[in-house]
Amino acid sequence: MTKNKNLLSWGLVAAVLLFVAVSAFAPRTSTRLGRGATAIAADRDLTPDDIEAALKTYMPSGRHDDYIMFSSGGHAGQVFVIGLPSMRILKTIGVFTPEPWQGWGTGAQDTMDILADGAVDGIEITWGDTHHPALSETGGEYDGQWLFINDKANARVALIDLKDFETKQIVKNPIAINDHGGTKVTPDTEWVIEGGQYATPLGYEYAPISDYADSYRGMVTFWKFDRLAGRIDKSASFAMELPPYWQDLCDAGKKVSEGWVVCGSFNSEMATGGIEDGNPPFEAGASQRDMDYLHIINLDAAIRVARAGQTSDINGFPVISLERSIAENLLYLAPEPKSPHGADITPGGEYIVVSGKLDPHVTIYSWAKIQSSIRAGNHRTDSYGVPILPFDSVVEAQVEVGLGPLHTEFDNQGYAYTSLFLEPAVARWTLGGPYERLHPEKGWQLVQQIPVHYNVGHLVTAEGDTVSPDGKYLVSLNKWALDRFANVGPLLPQNFQLIDIENNGDAMKLLYDMPMGIGEPHYAQIIKADKLNPWEVYPEVGWNPTTGTIDEHAVMLGEERVERHGNTVEIFMTAIRSHFTPERIDIRKGDHVIWHITNVERAYDATHGFALPGYNINVSIEPGEALSFEFDATNDGVFTYYCTEFCSALHLEMMGYLQVRP
Amino acid sequence: MTKNKNLLSWGLVAAVLLFVAVSAFAPRTSTRLGRGATAIAADRDLTPDDIEAALKTYMPSGRHDDYIMFSSGGHAGQVFVIGLPSMRILKTIGVFTPEPWQGWGTGAQDTMDILADGAVDGIEITWGDTHHPALSETGGEYDGQWLFINDKANARVALIDLKDFETKQIVKNPIAINDHGGTKVTPDTEWVIEGGQYATPLGYEYAPISDYADSYRGMVTFWKFDRLAGRIDKSASFAMELPPYWQDLCDAGKKVSEGWVVCGSFNSEMATGGIEDGNPPFEAGASQRDMDYLHIINLDAAIRVARAGQTSDINGFPVISLERSIAENLLYLAPEPKSPHGADITPGGEYIVVSGKLDPHVTIYSWAKIQSSIRAGNHRTDSYGVPILPFDSVVEAQVEVGLGPLHTEFDNQGYAYTSLFLEPAVARWTLGGPYERLHPEKGWQLVQQIPVHYNVGHLVTAEGDTVSPDGKYLVSLNKWALDRFANVGPLLPQNFQLIDIENNGDAMKLLYDMPMGIGEPHYAQIIKADKLNPWEVYPEVGWNPTTGTIDEHAVMLGEERVERHGNTVEIFMTAIRSHFTPERIDIRKGDHVIWHITNVERAYDATHGFALPGYNINVSIEPGEALSFEFDATNDGVFTYYCTEFCSALHLEMMGYLQVRP
Repeated sequence: MTKNKNLLSWGLVAAVLLFVAVSAFAPRTSTRLGRGATAIAADRDLTPDDIEAALKTYMPSGRHDDYIMFSSGGHAGQVFVIGLPSMRILKTIGVFTPEPWQGWGTGAQDTMDILADGAVDGIEITWGDTHHPALSETGGEYDGQWLFINDKANARVALIDLKDFETKQIVKNPIAINDHGGTKVTPDTEWVIEGGQYATPLGYEYAPISDYADSYRGMVTFWKFDRLAGRIDKSASFAMELPPYWQDLCDAGKKVSEGWVVCGSFNSEMATGGIEDGNPPFEAGASQRDMDYLHIINLDAAIRVARAGQTSDINGFPVISLERSIAENLLYLAPEPKSPHGADITPGGEYIVVSGKLDPHVTIYSWAKIQSSIRAGNHRTDSYGVPILPFDSVVEAQVEVGLGPLHTEFDNQGYAYTSLFLEPAVARWTLGGPYERLHPEKGWQLVQQIPVHYNVGHLVTAEGDTVSPDGKYLVSLNKWALDRFANVGPLLPQNFQLIDIENNGDAMKLLYDMPMGIGEPHYAQIIKADKLNPWEVYPEVGWNPTTGTIDEHAVMLGEERVERHGNTVEIFMTAIRSHFTPERIDIRKGDHVIWHITNVERAYDATHGFALPGYNINVSIEPGEALSFEFDATNDGVFTYYCTEFCSALHLEMMGYLQVRP
Repeated sequence: MTKNKNLLSWGLVAAVLLFVAVSAFAPRTSTRLGRGATAIAADRDLTPDDIEAALKTYMPSGRHDDYIMFSSGGHAGQVFVIGLPSMRILKTIGVFTPEPWQGWGTGAQDTMDILADGAVDGIEITWGDTHHPALSETGGEYDGQWLFINDKANARVALIDLKDFETKQIVKNPIAINDHGGTKVTPDTEWVIEGGQYATPLGYEYAPISDYADSYRGMVTFWKFDRLAGRIDKSASFAMELPPYWQDLCDAGKKVSEGWVVCGSFNSEMATGGIEDGNPPFEAGASQRDMDYLHIINLDAAIRVARAGQTSDINGFPVISLERSIAENLLYLAPEPKSPHGADITPGGEYIVVSGKLDPHVTIYSWAKIQSSIRAGNHRTDSYGVPILPFDSVVEAQVEVGLGPLHTEFDNQGYAYTSLFLEPAVARWTLGGPYERLHPEKGWQLVQQIPVHYNVGHLVTAEGDTVSPDGKYLVSLNKWALDRFANVGPLLPQNFQLIDIENNGDAMKLLYDMPMGIGEPHYAQIIKADKLNPWEVYPEVGWNPTTGTIDEHAVMLGEERVERHGNTVEIFMTAIRSHFTPERIDIRKGDHVIWHITNVERAYDATHGFALPGYNINVSIEPGEALSFEFDATNDGVFTYYCTEFCSALHLEMMGYLQVRP
């Protein structure tokens, strides 16, 4: 018995020791993650990878995302602001399409004026096809101050102020009816690049398509950004005429290649379609040749030519002719396989990556070789006389990455990432040259393909377009969500997939599927969240967000009034929780009404809306903001204006009566 | 030594046994959740509650959400479709505001016509303030077929077909310029209820506000839904004149109370504002009395009166006068404390819950007592002669739930949930009577308050407005996200907080913070995902989504053509991956263009867009869909139409040239 007891005791001691040892290891897991968590994981049938992804992307209440992604909204015409890693949409920014929550284009005069600047030959445009957002840069790094984005459909560029996340300017390209290669910026945001797409006669004037080779042209436009004024300066901007190949996404040179710009192109075949007449359709006609042309542009030299006035005037806009570009050595072509989407420059500017979507390789051009080849001279030319640098003289490497390569971004470990539309997958491959020391593999080779769901267009890495990408996260902008989400009818959401690229080698992992249930977001940029420093409220009461000054019609408390001058009634109103002053307005049918409202609040998020039924007026007035709108009181009756924001427990009482006497 | 060895052996045996025992328990945790998960949780400083919430809400790639929430978009004018528990936005549905991704109101003629039906006295309205979505019901259960939603600003109701998640109809209320109490439906969706808000002269004709008591009126409108036609039948609909108290959210009776409707109201003070003249502002004037009026309406009787033609005609719409309502016993009032937002009926229809936002209680009315009190007769009346049921004769209980109670929903465990705007929090409290057997607590008492971030307006539970709520999830629709998310400028997102209500007692837990970065979503409904059965593609090629039949201008493959009749050019086009036919169109300046396109694809998500630059045309053509648009070719030039969807690797080549000769 004693012996047995002893044995038992010893056994217990050993067991306890082992238990302690085990406790120090396994039960720590159990303590941290909890039995509840285990049960939930089992109940929901989550794999270990699912669990890790859940824990990597979950944001506890009140914790902020590390990165902010600005995504184009495709033909929704807007920009979406998304937090990473949670992949939550933080804001929709109204850009080319009116958006009433923000009071964007639904009454407020300044917003109506900005949208009206985007009209095409007098025709109002109420939407856009936003494609490529570009964050402003200082020294090649995103600086968190401005965002540019283009409208492919109508060849327009918009400017968004990241102080208040509102659109401040829309410029219509004077020579092109469509674009695609907008927008990227030069490393100090002196220039915003808008590349063309489908060639037309410049100024989109009429010429029959039978005269395509002679009368149709490509273009690239360089918009001068005036950072001090916070506006694109159209008067200091210019364009370059290009051959009627369909130019595509352009990228600005960095570091060693700063001062230059490269653009991809396709349809160097100059196909003009006509399937209805038995011609090959565009998709076939534009895919016949093995090579299209990478466009290599000496921007610094082009600026000098433009400033010297050596330009033609098209629709009132200075354009460097193709002839002049050739004469001044502004433009070179290099063969590129085969219908590529764009050209992407490595962080240090040493290489240009091109992905011909009908070729399984990425082709890497060396900036040093391009410069040597240019210096060597004695080039053959295309039919327009543009010098063509020999392929072998400029190519550094080709890497077979997979089917349908489209767009390449970079990280901080010397890897490049290329979207593969046809696989569909994302390929990780190694950069060579100076990047080789950053990763354990040899340069210029495929490392991993990770499947995505489904066809991926662009992809984006954190700070991926800067001179120092962060790595960490990649977002794959997939089309055709198909079975990924609950069925919401024949028009499907897109699928943004967040991929963990923090670990090197073949350790990329899928973290999150995010449905994008509006638009066909085309491209995005991701910035470190702490680089953004927006206002919480406008700096002073009476602030006009468009002029950035106190509005001339700002209304201070006690200054509210209604003035009549003949048939014009001018209303000076304040908004504060929870009333408008005045609350009763008495006018006559036929009056012209000019209505000024100032939100005199200083509290964070004391935003007030103002809705006027029957007259299509809806504005949003953030704390401190002053704005105005106008309309003709063509209908008599009683119209109940009210605050559309749930601004207090008494917000329903924040209203007033506009009485329009017959 | 032997003894020691034995001891050791025994100890080892015991240890191994214990280890096995521990392994069966703790290391299972470790196996399931993994050391990687533990490290991530530690690295991200996640609490055990965070971890459980992360695992409860994470959706592995391709797994579908269990519930779908339809949320109003507030003054964004749209409806948002959100998956639960992941809280991902699956779709934006264009309703009152044009939305180009869906081609909603940016060219396609049928969409333009539906939006034009929402004009107010000839003035086009391009936005709305969507408030209360209502899913269609069969036998008091959501049936997943239709969704209704109102526009508070302009008093309109829209109908969305859940076969394709598209808006099919907008009706303008003929007698009111604003509403609030829309929309809820009767248990078989025979009627859609649109309650008023701010009183005006009916027909929003002019009358001076000094005549408020005599000339201004409230209203409730009953829209007849024709399920077979899939449309609201305006000709079979009617309204009731109400006193000029500001009616609010209405609810339809269920089961024992079916055939009746109740509406809250506020401003029974009949305040008319005028802060500018030294009067109390609305927020004070409308908050003086301790009681407002619950409106109790005998809908079945009202239908009989309307069908008997005992109505007045206002703007061509039949309206039961207040006098007639009183004479026919259609309308009763009951005192309700104090400026409530709405009236919410329990799943079995036995109780009506009212929350006066300036009173810390919810007040529960008994349907049986209301019926008794009505039968008892001999009531005092308001100044309009409407009978007032004595408060004590109809109230079952009052429960002190907290400050600023606003809206109440229900679960499957006999609990009610009330949003508390001022706390801010969600209160769980117990229903009594027949619900008492479902929970361990006594009836009519507060059980738990859970804080929310921040001020909550409405809340919603899974299947919460049906006769059999599911419980499980509650979403708190919070305003003023403040510090919850990264700063995105002075206009802040809202915050939808997902709360776990599966466990009874005081075990509610916060699961997820979801920013809502557009609109001020007001109210939502949550349906079981498997009740929805939308189309993947349209049933046949040539389908017109508005008529639900083959379009008369559908274009089949091989039938593409351009016809000219005088100055009218009619284009018959097909879209298929990846070309439009025809690809070249040659017209003259001044032509009137009628353009028909059919997407002849049958593949899931082979959606094509069609954008025409410079003429403000953008449409979305889902597989099988046929649509048309028209414009006058007022500008000459070359216009490059193209597909806005990334429909294949050759989608950029899916384009064509519209040549407009001068």
